[in-house]
Amino acid sequence: MSNLATLDVSQHPNLPQSSQTLFAAKAQKQLSFEDISKQIGRNEVATAAIFYGQAKASPEDIVNLSKALGVPQEQLEQQLSGFPDRGRSVEMPPREPLIYRLYEIVQNYGYAYKAVLNEKFGDGIMSAISFSTKVEKETDADGNNWAVITLRGKW
Amino acid sequence: MSNLATLDVSQHPNLPQSSQTLFAAKAQKQLSFEDISKQIGRNEVATAAIFYGQAKASPEDIVNLSKALGVPQEQLEQQLSGFPDRGRSVEMPPREPLIYRLYEIVQNYGYAYKAVLNEKFGDGIMSAISFSTKVEKETDADGNNWAVITLRGKW
Amino acid sequence: MSNLATLDVSQHPNLPQSSQTLFAAKAQKQLSFEDISKQIGRNEVATAAIFYGQAKASPEDIVNLSKALGVPQEQLEQQLSGFPDRGRSVEMPPREPLIYRLYEIVQNYGYAYKAVLNEKFGDGIMSAISFSTKVEKETDADGNNWAVITLRGKW
Amino acid sequence: MSNLATLDVSQHPNLPQSSQTLFAAKAQKQLSFEDISKQIGRNEVATAAIFYGQAKASPEDIVNLSKALGVPQEQLEQQLSGFPDRGRSVEMPPREPLIYRLYEIVQNYGYAYKAVLNEKFGDGIMSAISFSTKVEKETDADGNNWAVITLRGKW
Amino acid sequence: MSNLATLDVSQHPNLPQSSQTLFAAKAQKQLSFEDISKQIGRNEVATAAIFYGQAKASPEDIVNLSKALGVPQEQLEQQLSGFPDRGRSVEMPPREPLIYRLYEIVQNYGYAYKAVLNEKFGDGIMSAISFSTKVEKETDADGNNWAVITLRGKW
Amino acid sequence: MSNLATLDVSQHPNLPQSSQTLFAAKAQKQLSFEDISKQIGRNEVATAAIFYGQAKASPEDIVNLSKALGVPQEQLEQQLSGFPDRGRSVEMPPREPLIYRLYEIVQNYGYAYKAVLNEKFGDGIMSAISFSTKVEKETDADGNNWAVITLRGKW
Amino acid sequence: MSNLATLDVSQHPNLPQSSQTLFAAKAQKQLSFEDISKQIGRNEVATAAIFYGQAKASPEDIVNLSKALGVPQEQLEQQLSGFPDRGRSVEMPPREPLIYRLYEIVQNYGYAYKAVLNEKFGDGIMSAISFSTKVEKETDADGNNWAVITLRGKW
Amino acid sequence: MSNLATLDVSQHPNLPQSSQTLFAAKAQKQLSFEDISKQIGRNEVATAAIFYGQAKASPEDIVNLSKALGVPQEQLEQQLSGFPDRGRSVEMPPREPLIYRLYEIVQNYGYAYKAVLNEKFGDGIMSAISFSTKVEKETDADGNNWAVITLRGKW
Amino acid sequence: MSNLATLDVSQHPNLPQSSQTLFAAKAQKQLSFEDISKQIGRNEVATAAIFYGQAKASPEDIVNLSKALGVPQEQLEQQLSGFPDRGRSVEMPPREPLIYRLYEIVQNYGYAYKAVLNEKFGDGIMSAISFSTKVEKETDADGNNWAVITLRGKW
Amino acid sequence: MSNLATLDVSQHPNLPQSSQTLFAAKAQKQLSFEDISKQIGRNEVATAAIFYGQAKASPEDIVNLSKALGVPQEQLEQQLSGFPDRGRSVEMPPREPLIYRLYEIVQNYGYAYKAVLNEKFGDGIMSAISFSTKVEKETDADGNNWAVITLRGKW
Repeated sequence: MSNLATLDVSQHPNLPQSSQTLFAAKAQKQLSFEDISKQIGRNEVATAAIFYGQAKASPEDIVNLSKALGVPQEQLEQQLSGFPDRGRSVEMPPREPLIYRLYEIVQNYGYAYKAVLNEKFGDGIMSAISFSTKVEKETDADGNNWAVITLRGKW
Repeated sequence: MSNLATLDVSQHPNLPQSSQTLFAAKAQKQLSFEDISKQIGRNEVATAAIFYGQAKASPEDIVNLSKALGVPQEQLEQQLSGFPDRGRSVEMPPREPLIYRLYEIVQNYGYAYKAVLNEKFGDGIMSAISFSTKVEKETDADGNNWAVITLRGKW
Repeated sequence: MSNLATLDVSQHPNLPQSSQTLFAAKAQKQLSFEDISKQIGRNEVATAAIFYGQAKASPEDIVNLSKALGVPQEQLEQQLSGFPDRGRSVEMPPREPLIYRLYEIVQNYGYAYKAVLNEKFGDGIMSAISFSTKVEKETDADGNNWAVITLRGKW
Repeated sequence: MSNLATLDVSQHPNLPQSSQTLFAAKAQKQLSFEDISKQIGRNEVATAAIFYGQAKASPEDIVNLSKALGVPQEQLEQQLSGFPDRGRSVEMPPREPLIYRLYEIVQNYGYAYKAVLNEKFGDGIMSAISFSTKVEKETDADGNNWAVITLRGKW
Repeated sequence: MSNLATLDVSQHPNLPQSSQTLFAAKAQKQLSFEDISKQIGRNEVATAAIFYGQAKASPEDIVNLSKALGVPQEQLEQQLSGFPDRGRSVEMPPREPLIYRLYEIVQNYGYAYKAVLNEKFGDGIMSAISFSTKVEKETDADGNNWAVITLRGKW
Repeated sequence: MSNLATLDVSQHPNLPQSSQTLFAAKAQKQLSFEDISKQIGRNEVATAAIFYGQAKASPEDIVNLSKALGVPQEQLEQQLSGFPDRGRSVEMPPREPLIYRLYEIVQNYGYAYKAVLNEKFGDGIMSAISFSTKVEKETDADGNNWAVITLRGKW
Repeated sequence: MSNLATLDVSQHPNLPQSSQTLFAAKAQKQLSFEDISKQIGRNEVATAAIFYGQAKASPEDIVNLSKALGVPQEQLEQQLSGFPDRGRSVEMPPREPLIYRLYEIVQNYGYAYKAVLNEKFGDGIMSAISFSTKVEKETDADGNNWAVITLRGKW
Repeated sequence: MSNLATLDVSQHPNLPQSSQTLFAAKAQKQLSFEDISKQIGRNEVATAAIFYGQAKASPEDIVNLSKALGVPQEQLEQQLSGFPDRGRSVEMPPREPLIYRLYEIVQNYGYAYKAVLNEKFGDGIMSAISFSTKVEKETDADGNNWAVITLRGKW
Repeated sequence: MSNLATLDVSQHPNLPQSSQTLFAAKAQKQLSFEDISKQIGRNEVATAAIFYGQAKASPEDIVNLSKALGVPQEQLEQQLSGFPDRGRSVEMPPREPLIYRLYEIVQNYGYAYKAVLNEKFGDGIMSAISFSTKVEKETDADGNNWAVITLRGKW
Repeated sequence: MSNLATLDVSQHPNLPQSSQTLFAAKAQKQLSFEDISKQIGRNEVATAAIFYGQAKASPEDIVNLSKALGVPQEQLEQQLSGFPDRGRSVEMPPREPLIYRLYEIVQNYGYAYKAVLNEKFGDGIMSAISFSTKVEKETDADGNNWAVITLRGKW
């Protein structure tokens, strides 16, 4: 049986109602984000971001999510029609160890990234909005697993 | 004339003495991190991380940095011989807009990353220590530049 | 179908009851703030500010809102009769990326604004109360959209 | 005698060395930002932002500033050649009343701006980087002065 | 019709139950604090402070409030019999602009008050408990209104 | 011998240079703020506020302060010519007990003031800028001293 | 009629269920902590600490509290059987003025206590656990009341 | 050789200059606070509080301290003549374990003290200014040492 | 009768639903963590960590917990199937005195641990994930109890 | 060449002067804490804690440190004679990743430790003062290194 990410609403009171709807259906259907992402044609992280209220679902996403999850389309339209109120899912600094590791990377490498980016691109900024990201799994010759996260933002 | 990242010590009172030494030599030699990284055989971000006191310089790094920057080897050995006291270069939340964008990615996508990573790898964590990272520049068909940051950590 | 801003009350527990009433009616009537602002004769930002409990609705506003939204006038009178308890809609620093950008402008340009204002007006202050603000949309020759926000405060 | 914005370095230990150089010359030459902005061909707020280390001076800006302020060009080149480490001039929340008023506008109107911007532009964000801003002075029929601040950011 | 201060309980979850009782009765009776203060023989600010749970109501206050507001005396006795748990009505720093202005006065003039008080009274402190305060309205020759707040504390 | 407020610069590193100049002269001349305020024709609190860098000294104030304190006028002109960078003298919440008592009054009575002010003046705000304040000493029949602080702000 | 401390649960959402049970019974029986402390044979502060969930009730305390308050013993056993989760009753810094005064004593005299204790006892610490405390009332010749708090901790 | 409390100025940059003077003399004379307190006729904690800049030295204290410590009287008069800027010696929450234990007592017993004090004295407050405190050492039958701290404040 | 750790849900609103289920069953069965740990074959701290939602329960753990506690297996599977959202049980800094002592050890000895670990292992980090921990009780010759906590993490 | 922990004073401005003295001598003599601990007869962590100003050096420690490090005994006596002002070496939350891992263990396992300790020992606390700790290195069959930290505190 595969691993499935779930949502315990009592631990996330700041998430929108849509999060509860989507995660409940995901748990009942026993679908992974990989399964869902294939059905709605978006990558896994973007799919999960919709579930956590961090990305806007397009009208097609809503149709596809309705099919994939068996949730009435009108319900999703109502709950997902607004604009995401981003930034409410993680309290900073993050207390979750896995998320803290990403925070720590920013804390430790922040100026190194800035220096290299400035030298490569000049003054400016990497957008966190015109932006895509993905997660991949690599296994090396010794059988160790490596998580590879790619961030791609417009300069 | 190329862009060069410099250090204004008065803005970074918490950095180690080595940062001042290294950045002063870099400015005088007019070397980019790309230049230096080639001479010392490490990637650019890791090179910059040494400059900001966030990564340990190996004995070979010290030899190579001494040559590349024209700083006496003994001086570098003395200033770089200890163990890095990581985490002092960026005050969190970051006030620098470019670094804030990375922080914002963690704030917005943190749980999405966790959910996808857990489903792919099971319970566990991506190391921020057995870890490498790089920055690349892409230019798309419309001439837009994209910054691509890759994080690769052992699970 | 046009974009409509909605309110997910579960994400805004600190807003007054009137916010819920007004946003629910707006969603049901499928009205944009532009639509409503025309019916009540105020600009869009001021209209939205009433919805978020940040501006006082005058007796005429209440009459007009009642008509525009189909909410009984007495209900609005009861919920909007008090004085706004301003400042509760955004937690600072803002986590919402769009609002954070405005915060960042204050963080980065704050002293530049002060210096220029002081040189133009002498010692004093720009009121945030005897104050009006508006949002406009511009499209340049290349088809890029620009958001233009104007702040006008009594000195 | 006109009003002149000055810098008391002892109150701003986090600003770069260039700030001290530029403000000292400005005070000695008794130049307002309006004077300087005309000589360097940028608007007043952008000029002040360079003084506070919040904007990058281009090579031409450096040449022009050198002339306008009577500071040796090499000194400016050295102090202004790096990339700005933005965000260090204002501690948030701002304690300066004039700057606080801008902060308060974000606190009170943040979601109103977001709602109106989303309805006008769809999901997205107003850039704080591809961005310009200006300050103007208006005097109404009753002789009252009004400060008008315009923010214009790419969507 | 006069202005009436009301309480939206959903915005003040930390206030005692008595606040809800008192404000609900005040709204129903359409009484201002001036009206009530005359009936209970205390000044307006002290009256409002009882409503916000910041001052202790004496047995006579309870009798008088019961009459003035039409609330059963036993209910008030039960809800007001304890000792006030002061300090819970305002979150500091205050987000409400009007209250923030008072906070700002302390922030800006704090040491000036201390210096003048010490020179007038010697070492010591002005009590915030053996203390009375009042608000008055003045209108000057030009028709401008001025709010005058007086603080009187035992040294 | 009268009580004299002094300044220990080592405890106030954020104050402007003028504070050190003014307080040093005040200590040497053994002048109270009452003495100085009479010589420069402003009230005591305003006088002290200039010393702490919280109020702008007019050209006449500078002439008068120069005479009263025996400090060269040019020195004062140079140090006092800029615009005050208000808000840096007190760290909030205040740790000094006397100043904390004022802070506590805002914390406890904030909403009571707001409610009474709104009922008296309608929606709006009391200015902390078009504002004057004074401190008086009263002695009651029992010989107790009372400090009376009056705040008067334009509505 | 004597003064009685009560609990308004809506202001203390972090207290354990036992607090509500105990305070409700105390209010109904109109018992002071002095009354209860005599019946259960502990001092008043320790008794109040049990009510606020800050001290563990022994089996005998539970029997005695049941008798004194008329609460079924099983109910108390269930609610008081666990180990106290101390530290949740006061948010620091305290907003309640009376409790703040104690906090202020620590803030002002902390190092004075440490210096005197170290000189008297050598290096070490005063336990806050092997610890007892009491409150006494003294009235001096002028009729003034003094509160005397004694802290006694093992070194 | 007895234990002596000393001051490492580098760890206490916020203390007044008098602290450095007094502690340096104390170290050179090898005097405990008990020794000094006897010579100046105040209790030990009050004496230490003067050393840490938390209590005002009277003219007689200055004379006596000058004799006891061998510091020129004029130097002490100059450094101690102002009014103490209390509250700067301890950063809250305290990091020093011994001082933290006192803080913890306030955190845990704060409401218990308030409840008992209110029941004994009615509504009001214990002064932290009309206040005295002392430290005593007790040794019990088992040879254990107990630190006894007494706080006595006017109600 | 043995001591039993219980959970008062009202004090821990951030814990997952499984915590309530598990602690309720533990209280009803009157089982200690030692009892349960023996039945499920894990050490006591790991067992307690599952109860607080800080460790992932394996499928076998769920089977064993179901038996030990008499909770239906499906209920545990549903509530424990997700990935732990770690870090929500303790608010930092900890207010609970016992937990604070551990925090204080990190605060005081943090750099000492780092220095010794770096000298023993070189640059790197002790994992908090590939990690086990246990608690033991020792009684010395004088009858004193000592708590021994062992942390064992992969380097 | 062995690894040696060093101190870059510019990164630790809050440490006592003794830290600089001790670390400078350690670097010059090229001694590890293991070396020094053997010479002074204390364990490594306690030795390092003295270097960081977190533990009191006894008179014998001073003699031994003087010999081991070649620092004049009088200098050490002067700098180490006071009582440690503990808690200033680590800013919490720790930014150093290695120290953060220990902090994270407290954050995640805090209540689990408390529950198990309470069940084993009853109500009470583990002392962080009557306390010893050590670090050991283990290598498992696969050649992996494990850091083992033991905390032993009196109950």
